[in-house]
Amino acid sequence: MRWSSAFIPTRRDKPAEAETRGHELMLRAGMIKQLSSGIYSYLPPGYRVIRKLEEVVRQEMVRVGAQELFMPAMQPREIWDETGRWDKYGSNMVKFRDRNNRAYGLAPTHEEAVTDIVRALVLSYRQLPLSLFQIQTKFRDEARPRFGVIRAREFSMKDAYSFDIDEQGLDRSFQAMFDAYVRILQRLRLPSIAVEADSGAIGGTGSVEFMIPTGTGEDQIIYCDGCGYAANIEKAVSRYEPYYFDGDMLSTEIVPTPHASTIDEVSAFFDVPAQRFIKTLIYYADNTPIAALIRGDHEVNEVKLANAVGCQELVLADARTIEEITHARVGFAGPVGIDRIPIYCDDAVPLMRNALTGANQDDAHMINVNYGRDFVADQVLDMRRTAAGDHCTRCDGPLRVQRGIEVGHVFKLGTVYSEPMHATFAAEDGSERPFVMGCYGIGISRLVAAVIETSNDENGIIWPLEIAPYLAVIIPTNVDTPQIRDVAEKMYAELCEEGCEVLIDDRAVSAGTKFKDNDLIGIPVTITVGKNYLSSGLVEYRLRTGALAAIPEETAVSRVCDLSEMLRNQSERYI
Amino acid sequence: MRWSSAFIPTRRDKPAEAETRGHELMLRAGMIKQLSSGIYSYLPPGYRVIRKLEEVVRQEMVRVGAQELFMPAMQPREIWDETGRWDKYGSNMVKFRDRNNRAYGLAPTHEEAVTDIVRALVLSYRQLPLSLFQIQTKFRDEARPRFGVIRAREFSMKDAYSFDIDEQGLDRSFQAMFDAYVRILQRLRLPSIAVEADSGAIGGTGSVEFMIPTGTGEDQIIYCDGCGYAANIEKAVSRYEPYYFDGDMLSTEIVPTPHASTIDEVSAFFDVPAQRFIKTLIYYADNTPIAALIRGDHEVNEVKLANAVGCQELVLADARTIEEITHARVGFAGPVGIDRIPIYCDDAVPLMRNALTGANQDDAHMINVNYGRDFVADQVLDMRRTAAGDHCTRCDGPLRVQRGIEVGHVFKLGTVYSEPMHATFAAEDGSERPFVMGCYGIGISRLVAAVIETSNDENGIIWPLEIAPYLAVIIPTNVDTPQIRDVAEKMYAELCEEGCEVLIDDRAVSAGTKFKDNDLIGIPVTITVGKNYLSSGLVEYRLRTGALAAIPEETAVSRVCDLSEMLRNQSERYI
Repeated sequence: MRWSSAFIPTRRDKPAEAETRGHELMLRAGMIKQLSSGIYSYLPPGYRVIRKLEEVVRQEMVRVGAQELFMPAMQPREIWDETGRWDKYGSNMVKFRDRNNRAYGLAPTHEEAVTDIVRALVLSYRQLPLSLFQIQTKFRDEARPRFGVIRAREFSMKDAYSFDIDEQGLDRSFQAMFDAYVRILQRLRLPSIAVEADSGAIGGTGSVEFMIPTGTGEDQIIYCDGCGYAANIEKAVSRYEPYYFDGDMLSTEIVPTPHASTIDEVSAFFDVPAQRFIKTLIYYADNTPIAALIRGDHEVNEVKLANAVGCQELVLADARTIEEITHARVGFAGPVGIDRIPIYCDDAVPLMRNALTGANQDDAHMINVNYGRDFVADQVLDMRRTAAGDHCTRCDGPLRVQRGIEVGHVFKLGTVYSEPMHATFAAEDGSERPFVMGCYGIGISRLVAAVIETSNDENGIIWPLEIAPYLAVIIPTNVDTPQIRDVAEKMYAELCEEGCEVLIDDRAVSAGTKFKDNDLIGIPVTITVGKNYLSSGLVEYRLRTGALAAIPEETAVSRVCDLSEMLRNQSERYI
Repeated sequence: MRWSSAFIPTRRDKPAEAETRGHELMLRAGMIKQLSSGIYSYLPPGYRVIRKLEEVVRQEMVRVGAQELFMPAMQPREIWDETGRWDKYGSNMVKFRDRNNRAYGLAPTHEEAVTDIVRALVLSYRQLPLSLFQIQTKFRDEARPRFGVIRAREFSMKDAYSFDIDEQGLDRSFQAMFDAYVRILQRLRLPSIAVEADSGAIGGTGSVEFMIPTGTGEDQIIYCDGCGYAANIEKAVSRYEPYYFDGDMLSTEIVPTPHASTIDEVSAFFDVPAQRFIKTLIYYADNTPIAALIRGDHEVNEVKLANAVGCQELVLADARTIEEITHARVGFAGPVGIDRIPIYCDDAVPLMRNALTGANQDDAHMINVNYGRDFVADQVLDMRRTAAGDHCTRCDGPLRVQRGIEVGHVFKLGTVYSEPMHATFAAEDGSERPFVMGCYGIGISRLVAAVIETSNDENGIIWPLEIAPYLAVIIPTNVDTPQIRDVAEKMYAELCEEGCEVLIDDRAVSAGTKFKDNDLIGIPVTITVGKNYLSSGLVEYRLRTGALAAIPEETAVSRVCDLSEMLRNQSERYI
């Protein structure tokens, strides 16, 4: 391709909308353009990368025996009602009515659709195991689209689904997919951590996320250097530092605490540590108010709490609601004498003796509050947010926290879809049994973003060879010098002839501009034909990663051909 | 791939939902499965064909210098309002509100989206010409989804857009795309006719459709053997047989016509030919009633009429509306004395002398009606439906009619998008000028359907080699005979090793079932290892098109390798 006619709209300035380094580089390299919040077009250089990355993923799926299909995005409500997920997805799913007033959704994931296919067309255990996958555009009406294509409302994903006769079969299918994901990430040179994860709206008996550690990701990983435990902070468990305050239960008492409503202020007022307090938070769980109780030095993990409540949305209540429920200004809520709403209580709270809480009166707290005697909860659960410094539940080592980007998520579903959808097969003994399923997602656009986020320098993107938009660029420093131009054109023609993916930067701009643009978009090999060629007959062969050599033009051509050949051999044709 | 583990759910029976032979074969060959009206999943054999066909289209796009990008399906209303197409598309577009109550549509086409990109990133004539294309899922909320994937609500399309500095540039871009389409259809062995077409909701100064003649397509092509004129019936013009009835204008008169309301009945009653009647049809044009007048022996072309009215939907009014407007039962409408609604009149009508019409009274007709004296129309236009036997306006030869499937449509848009969207570039003289655009669509899923519709026999599909799901199948007639099984497995291993796309039918079913299934899905080459091999050492090498030979196994393997190599060479890598 010739730069002069290629649509590669690079830019020098940092776009105002860029939220991370990777987001900035994708915009500046002309890879994407935003159409609406969380909705992007992939411009030619960006889409070349997407297609190559899809091919890497496709090859690894085929290697583990998965077969590619393509399911629709537009799906009737009925199949989602079979599993109850029409309601469960709530406003995260794009929903509409067609011209005949039938309800449809745009699928954020395809468990229902694929199960609908398999229940109709797979009848016998002889047809199992079966793994199906697709690479398809997904829609998710995110509340907070962020970081460019990382949290988008329309995005490309590879989703795979396995169908087995039993749990042992699922274990094998799951492991094969797990291994495929590891290979994909290795081919993309992405360092990753597999972590225990919350299964969220997908459900099932367990799930693992593949996280790419970055400084800026929106996910947080809790991990233990001691034993290797790693989990998404949404799911992570930890042993918290116990705090014993023994002694007899004393009578409750209401104490005026003017000007003290935060834990710090009240802690100072009573001169006791935060561990002695019970914090009472009022939430709206899908529009129903609930109270959440947690020890003063802990924080609520809202994912754990929402899972326990079984709600879609969990948001802190506004001041007016809090005042209506507690009959007091914000800051004085407590579990005793609160208007009857469901109470969820962290499992550290019942162990507390003679605790302090808000009194549900303005400017007052209650002391000597005890679980069981003074209040009870509707549900006691682990709803603590794990934090750096907590102790590992396995080895008691200190836990650390790291930001990251979730790029893949694999689930053991078991029969949570096949049972409600009556998706069964005839087993060897003649009985009808539900398929034992797994599902496996990896974000195509998110992987691209993760690669850029983790692999760049001050000049731009550094691509792994397999997914670079072009393998090499030939730069004649001055297209007006016939000798320079001609040798550049000759090399370009030779490399095209050999089937190499090569650019020639034939623009009438300065050599500096050319170097900047090609480093920005991350072309792995730059071959420069400049003044040096006129004197020595050598071209400059430079790798994006830094290595540099002055070599004869034929050597440069054959080096690129060798690289190209190596990449072709690496990617097997799929049969 | 092994048949025993491949997901190729063939079926023997003709599915009740099949509307055409092609639709039937796609279902029976396990290529597609319906999820909802007009919404299909592509199962593994079907999706292999889709991907290969995409690659053919992609290669021909790249050959003419188009660059691939990928634009979103989910688009904010605002860009559609810039061109007025939010309203123009009406209920054909899927529309919804996101969680923040912003209006979005799912794009049935991408003129607005691509123009939005180009106006932001292409600033100078130096960056032109530019052609961009994508292969992407489109959504169209069809009123009547039909014929399987041919008229679907979610479908795959290649859409391309060209940007030029002037009309001459557009002519060149248009011709290049036209030629690319011809090559695509040739590679798919599809006989096609390029016809003048109605531009519909896309607009612009002219368009050409690529039609595949079939017995069952939903489109009708009018063509002239004499001069080569060809047009979609929606657009076709013809010279109609004039009918002269001279004489003086006589006075109108109302004549009772009991029991005669159809043209035939009234024609018999008055004993005059249908050519003397003016038919008056009452339509709803987007909920506004209008009257359409046409000579008694002609039919209304509703596309021409809708274009003249400028409406989205044109439907015949119900009886009650007709009675309210004409003050008479259905069958007695006429242009004289009708309640004031817009009147559209075919241009044959003003030439009629002393015509007969309904009297807008029950059981009565009016005679001696003359345009100009007794009534006038709001608009006079050609709204006749061209029919077989009409005369060609170019050479006066007889026109013929043929059913077909529209697979591609190319448009000269000019500035109909760039002007309202203020998409301009700096011209060489420094002035700001609107881009001169073209757009070019070809249906991927529709092409697959057209190939099957036109290329099959009683046993199943006959694929052109380039898009067959697999190139060859090896059939051991009996997998329990070690010698047969072993040689089949050996050939399979060799062909896999050589990168050929080959199936081995290792199922424990009868040879007859294997032949039936593989002929049904249309595998081009069948290599059978059967009893004959045991006696003669020869395998049967059969082409799906019929040719048959008994040859040594090594010859069979090398023939398949040669075919595979030929196909690989045919499809150039894109640079």
